[in-house]
Amino acid sequence: MIDYPTILDEIYLSLKSAVHRGTVASYIPELGKVNGKKFGIHLLTVSGDEYGVGDYKESFSIQSISKVLALTKALNFVGTELWKRVDVEPSGDPFNFLSLLEMERGIPRNPLINAGALVVSDILVSHFTNPKQDFLAFVRELAEDDTICYDEEVAKSEKQTGYRNAAAANLLKSFNNIYNDVDEVLDFYFYQCSISMNCKQLSRTFYNYANGGKGMSGKVFIAPSQAKRINAIMLTCGFYDEAGEFAFEVGLPGKSGVGGGIVALHPGNYCISVWSPGLNKKGNSLLGMQALEMFTTKTGISIF
Amino acid sequence: MIDYPTILDEIYLSLKSAVHRGTVASYIPELGKVNGKKFGIHLLTVSGDEYGVGDYKESFSIQSISKVLALTKALNFVGTELWKRVDVEPSGDPFNFLSLLEMERGIPRNPLINAGALVVSDILVSHFTNPKQDFLAFVRELAEDDTICYDEEVAKSEKQTGYRNAAAANLLKSFNNIYNDVDEVLDFYFYQCSISMNCKQLSRTFYNYANGGKGMSGKVFIAPSQAKRINAIMLTCGFYDEAGEFAFEVGLPGKSGVGGGIVALHPGNYCISVWSPGLNKKGNSLLGMQALEMFTTKTGISIF
Amino acid sequence: MIDYPTILDEIYLSLKSAVHRGTVASYIPELGKVNGKKFGIHLLTVSGDEYGVGDYKESFSIQSISKVLALTKALNFVGTELWKRVDVEPSGDPFNFLSLLEMERGIPRNPLINAGALVVSDILVSHFTNPKQDFLAFVRELAEDDTICYDEEVAKSEKQTGYRNAAAANLLKSFNNIYNDVDEVLDFYFYQCSISMNCKQLSRTFYNYANGGKGMSGKVFIAPSQAKRINAIMLTCGFYDEAGEFAFEVGLPGKSGVGGGIVALHPGNYCISVWSPGLNKKGNSLLGMQALEMFTTKTGISIF
Amino acid sequence: MIDYPTILDEIYLSLKSAVHRGTVASYIPELGKVNGKKFGIHLLTVSGDEYGVGDYKESFSIQSISKVLALTKALNFVGTELWKRVDVEPSGDPFNFLSLLEMERGIPRNPLINAGALVVSDILVSHFTNPKQDFLAFVRELAEDDTICYDEEVAKSEKQTGYRNAAAANLLKSFNNIYNDVDEVLDFYFYQCSISMNCKQLSRTFYNYANGGKGMSGKVFIAPSQAKRINAIMLTCGFYDEAGEFAFEVGLPGKSGVGGGIVALHPGNYCISVWSPGLNKKGNSLLGMQALEMFTTKTGISIF
Repeated sequence: MIDYPTILDEIYLSLKSAVHRGTVASYIPELGKVNGKKFGIHLLTVSGDEYGVGDYKESFSIQSISKVLALTKALNFVGTELWKRVDVEPSGDPFNFLSLLEMERGIPRNPLINAGALVVSDILVSHFTNPKQDFLAFVRELAEDDTICYDEEVAKSEKQTGYRNAAAANLLKSFNNIYNDVDEVLDFYFYQCSISMNCKQLSRTFYNYANGGKGMSGKVFIAPSQAKRINAIMLTCGFYDEAGEFAFEVGLPGKSGVGGGIVALHPGNYCISVWSPGLNKKGNSLLGMQALEMFTTKTGISIF
Repeated sequence: MIDYPTILDEIYLSLKSAVHRGTVASYIPELGKVNGKKFGIHLLTVSGDEYGVGDYKESFSIQSISKVLALTKALNFVGTELWKRVDVEPSGDPFNFLSLLEMERGIPRNPLINAGALVVSDILVSHFTNPKQDFLAFVRELAEDDTICYDEEVAKSEKQTGYRNAAAANLLKSFNNIYNDVDEVLDFYFYQCSISMNCKQLSRTFYNYANGGKGMSGKVFIAPSQAKRINAIMLTCGFYDEAGEFAFEVGLPGKSGVGGGIVALHPGNYCISVWSPGLNKKGNSLLGMQALEMFTTKTGISIF
Repeated sequence: MIDYPTILDEIYLSLKSAVHRGTVASYIPELGKVNGKKFGIHLLTVSGDEYGVGDYKESFSIQSISKVLALTKALNFVGTELWKRVDVEPSGDPFNFLSLLEMERGIPRNPLINAGALVVSDILVSHFTNPKQDFLAFVRELAEDDTICYDEEVAKSEKQTGYRNAAAANLLKSFNNIYNDVDEVLDFYFYQCSISMNCKQLSRTFYNYANGGKGMSGKVFIAPSQAKRINAIMLTCGFYDEAGEFAFEVGLPGKSGVGGGIVALHPGNYCISVWSPGLNKKGNSLLGMQALEMFTTKTGISIF
Repeated sequence: MIDYPTILDEIYLSLKSAVHRGTVASYIPELGKVNGKKFGIHLLTVSGDEYGVGDYKESFSIQSISKVLALTKALNFVGTELWKRVDVEPSGDPFNFLSLLEMERGIPRNPLINAGALVVSDILVSHFTNPKQDFLAFVRELAEDDTICYDEEVAKSEKQTGYRNAAAANLLKSFNNIYNDVDEVLDFYFYQCSISMNCKQLSRTFYNYANGGKGMSGKVFIAPSQAKRINAIMLTCGFYDEAGEFAFEVGLPGKSGVGGGIVALHPGNYCISVWSPGLNKKGNSLLGMQALEMFTTKTGISIF
């Protein structure tokens, strides 16, 4: 029997005063205001046990982590049709490079890079009645928590500086892989990324991926086979061009965001969320990566 | 003494009924309406002699040819500062590829590819009081012809479908190489490209580049050293990824547009304009390229 | 309790007469001689149970599958020093593209693409006394089978046509990432790839990766943490630019070769080998991919 | 009437003591031994007048300049068939990048980048009886000078370190665009590049390109139309990824080599050679570029 509370405490103690904490993302001005000293971890087992340490109850911008949730809902709507518009291969490139997109005629490498997530957003804009409201409702349902909200300041801040995403969306449109108005899709996308959660809420939101698609209350959000495939995509594509490194060092499916959050999960076992705003050079939370590596080393179990 | 009229007649006769005339550009819907049978040539010597054949008095959309004029005015405004924001190397890539731009951190390869022309447009938007009016006034002055106008239908048509240019402009903005509002720059750019001229007007507009920067009435539009450099850029970069081929087969500085126009010039000698709407695979007027190749072969003179 | 024999029989029966079997690799002439009708599967559980169907006792050229074995031995020799010369990220490109290698200054994306495998070969050439003999001895030890041999005809055939590998090796050498003589490294590499095995031998050879680094007789070939990492690399990089697809559809670490073999494993559970010479467009065994997808669907278990 | 001697003297005086002289190429060890203080210029007019200053009688390795001579002979042998195996577009990339070659399926961008020159070498190896001897005889004939020789030390030095060229040749072979044995082609290529000349000999060798294909004694080496086209290729492709810059600043067709030599010409007027071993960041002689820029500025004539 693994003693999770003790392990989390050890990790927290050994990292909380780390000097090298990476750099807080500042390309979205609003994100740059976050206190770089924050650090929290939360674990939720499939059987429902929970343990939190540090700032695990403090909200942060989940950013790209939201792409997994959007993908899940898009699969609910269109099923495997989605894979005609987005591939499932690792991109091997930083998260904001357009080159591959151009060479591959507007089919993004996978749904977790920005270009792919924009196509997913386009699908949601097409199928939701009130895209922003409906998406938030879906996330609240996943988390079983009605207090989760968009951070409008972050959404607006990103909108004003999101030129690369605007470039990607226009390029996708030029290849007919965005069906709705470019500005409408971008607006939805920036809101989607601006969702605020704390580590505890994040673990609960991702519980279903560790539990074959079923939420804590037993509600089925996605078929078991789809949950597996989303996990596979997280493993191969969840960490920009550090996906291989994460699989190699941590060995779990997961997803990071530039807000400094990372969620990872061991199918059938647990879901773990970490938050520390400082990022490494590849755009992933520096302490978050270290914490998860320590976690799988100390517990001695990984999917490999 | 070269008998230009006879040579033009010969070229016109041998090509006017050509079966293979390429494909009229349709990505801008309004351009797709043009009659593919049109074909005209006009020659203007530095001493002022003129000869026209075929549809040389019929107006067409000069499109990318306008980039040379915009570059000239931007050099008037900011001088060599311009070269900090745009390079002068051939791109070696089709006109609409963003990849290089990304790899080279937002510095377009040269001012005659779309990305470079967008930076030039940004400079004009910064320095003109009323950009659209003022640019048109400048072109009319170059041509000594006040009847030249924008084709608003073409400008609007391009605006509605110009997603690749919007992608490029946003990418440039993300690298801080667009200073004004993206939409304002794009709007100006689409108008700039929509200028309508006939072959005769086009020859007159480009007369100054064949005449060391001086227009027909003696007005100096640009210093001789600048005229030379613009000619050098036309030679190395004027024909998308067919620039080498054009230098190789024709051997003159020139610029083409997707409206099917091509203007070329022999410094100190003449300026020649050709128009035929059908394009070859690389986006240059098919008959236009053939006509100019025949012209330099028949006259036996080129800059090489 | 999963009934493996029945599942294997079902898969074998449903695929053995398949009409679309892909194309037998012919770029190595000797490989092109193989009978495209061959099809075999072999499963070996961690507890030692074995089941084989079809041509599972017939030998084939394991080709790129050998890269995992070479990597294992190189890690034995140099440990984590290896990661200074090769990265662990998915390549996102077909197996024979040199472009990335050039952009990344001679550091191959991962040890399972050709360029990375050449660096691994270079390490083995440096550390083995008699590279070819010693590597074969290592493989025989892994498989606990002294009958395994190189196929000299295949090695020679590849040597005579391996221009892309020669290009990669020379490029690596130009970046000082090959220490030995280029021809010596290539010669070793072609032999390494030419090893012949049948499905049964292949399962036995890869048993240790499913068993935390321990072979069938209990011998430790690699530390448990290294075994995990090799499994992670197989999952993210084992199938050229179809690695994401394989993780998505099959959900197991594995490695394919152009000889038509695929080996995959479920850590702690089993190792499975498939052979059918016809390849799909991405260079992986067509029936092999289908068989493994059916296998994880029917057994209902995967690492995700 | 332009006073060439005075202009050359002025340029020589103003540059000969320059502090920033670039870096002598050291990737070919033998080239690295050259004295970086050397500086010479030689001009030869079409009417036969000659002027030399500085070290214009000292021999240096012409390196890539030889590619123009090899191209000329290959055109003699196979005519326009050559253009099926090599394109004429500027490469837009540094001289040693293989990426484009791979993307363009083994058709080099132009005959003046290494990959293109290797295809040209392959043609010469196919058509000469004794490739090395026969090529040297051809160069001696162009220069009307039997003392010109290969520098065997340089050829051998390059052979031992020419891994990038070996990579390119093997890649070309993999696309079936090298017909002979790779090693034989490389050996010829390294000898071709090792030819030693002084500025005076270089001007004489290139006289024919300034004179419509006719050498000093009136012998026709190439048709006037071919000479023009070779000049066009020199202009668009003669300076690696600084071709646009050279056309822009100097405005003449020319070719540089990493030995620090540059030859340029004004068709119908003159041929000028400069040598200074220090290279700028793009691999062209730093003082050589400056000298030629000063020359066209002071004479006030260029092809543009």
